[in-house]
Amino acid sequence: MKVLEERIRQEGLILSETVLKVDSFLNHQVDTALTLAIGKEFAAVFGDRQITKVLTVEASGIQFAMAAGIALGVPFIYAKKKKAITLSEAVYSAPVHSFTRQEDYQISISQKYLGPDDTVLIVDDFLATGAALVGLCDIVAESGAQLAGVGCVIEKSFQEGRGLLEQRGIPVYSLARIASMSPGEIHFIDNEGLLKECAGC
Amino acid sequence: MKVLEERIRQEGLILSETVLKVDSFLNHQVDTALTLAIGKEFAAVFGDRQITKVLTVEASGIQFAMAAGIALGVPFIYAKKKKAITLSEAVYSAPVHSFTRQEDYQISISQKYLGPDDTVLIVDDFLATGAALVGLCDIVAESGAQLAGVGCVIEKSFQEGRGLLEQRGIPVYSLARIASMSPGEIHFIDNEGLLKECAGC
Repeated sequence: MKVLEERIRQEGLILSETVLKVDSFLNHQVDTALTLAIGKEFAAVFGDRQITKVLTVEASGIQFAMAAGIALGVPFIYAKKKKAITLSEAVYSAPVHSFTRQEDYQISISQKYLGPDDTVLIVDDFLATGAALVGLCDIVAESGAQLAGVGCVIEKSFQEGRGLLEQRGIPVYSLARIASMSPGEIHFIDNEGLLKECAGC
Repeated sequence: MKVLEERIRQEGLILSETVLKVDSFLNHQVDTALTLAIGKEFAAVFGDRQITKVLTVEASGIQFAMAAGIALGVPFIYAKKKKAITLSEAVYSAPVHSFTRQEDYQISISQKYLGPDDTVLIVDDFLATGAALVGLCDIVAESGAQLAGVGCVIEKSFQEGRGLLEQRGIPVYSLARIASMSPGEIHFIDNEGLLKECAGC
């Protein structure tokens, strides 16, 4: 998605070879028009798969799940990171290790909102180590729902996340794929043809 | 907002006189069409105030801030609940006590994204004790931005939140105001005329 790559070049702050800040337009301050366009792109890629629900994890996936849900005309669900007192019923859950925050947590969703009749698109802001996304895929498998694929806004292709998902046979589509980066320099992988590749999974 | 009140009557689970679950359509599984309509309603109420940014707090305010941002044509910002390693620069912050989770936390936003040139609409899913909203108002005051008002999806009018905000002279508009509730029973306050009252603040 060229407009996204350009925005990352203009506003992204590369703090190290692994840390990219995009909080001026994606995950702290959020450009609503760009986010809606991101949702449309996900719908263009996965829209022929009869998706019934979009799934993400709080907090920074929510705006993209919302945008994808708007474009696909379906509800979205966000997994919670810890059990609140109002989430008392049966849940699907999976353990996740956050490398950004250096902590372990559980993600969970109510069993009421996902089941064998659903076809799910998982979306998130970043695909890096894949930890949270693998947890979401485990939750979808546990629920008996079909997994249509995983859509990510930005992929750090030099980290292991894509490999972990592809090993499981999961279609993965990222709108901006970073081959490598260092302060002042960023290289994207050309996405052309990936949609077809993804569709063939 | 009648359609919202009806949905709360149909799907809301009243667990006690203070705890209402709306996680089938608002804050776990999210009805995207209803959420967009909620954003339009906030824009109808506050749209004449030259708002430049919508502000909320992660996680369950994000979809409503997104919807309000879409309707107003402006970006939104979500305050973070703890400092991530990628949020290293100067922040505005405020302490908050969560009665739902029984814990204290800091909310913070980067100083880069709010300043004296901004006019801010704060939105959130619930107005109850008002703790998080007062924290957000403090952050807006600290930034030097103008506060256009606070918009909430559901207000528990029997709790102190509205009073705390009105004491500060802040216009408050909630789309569904609950006068009282108990399992199997819920009473709403008629919202008619409140917009005018709010506009006069």
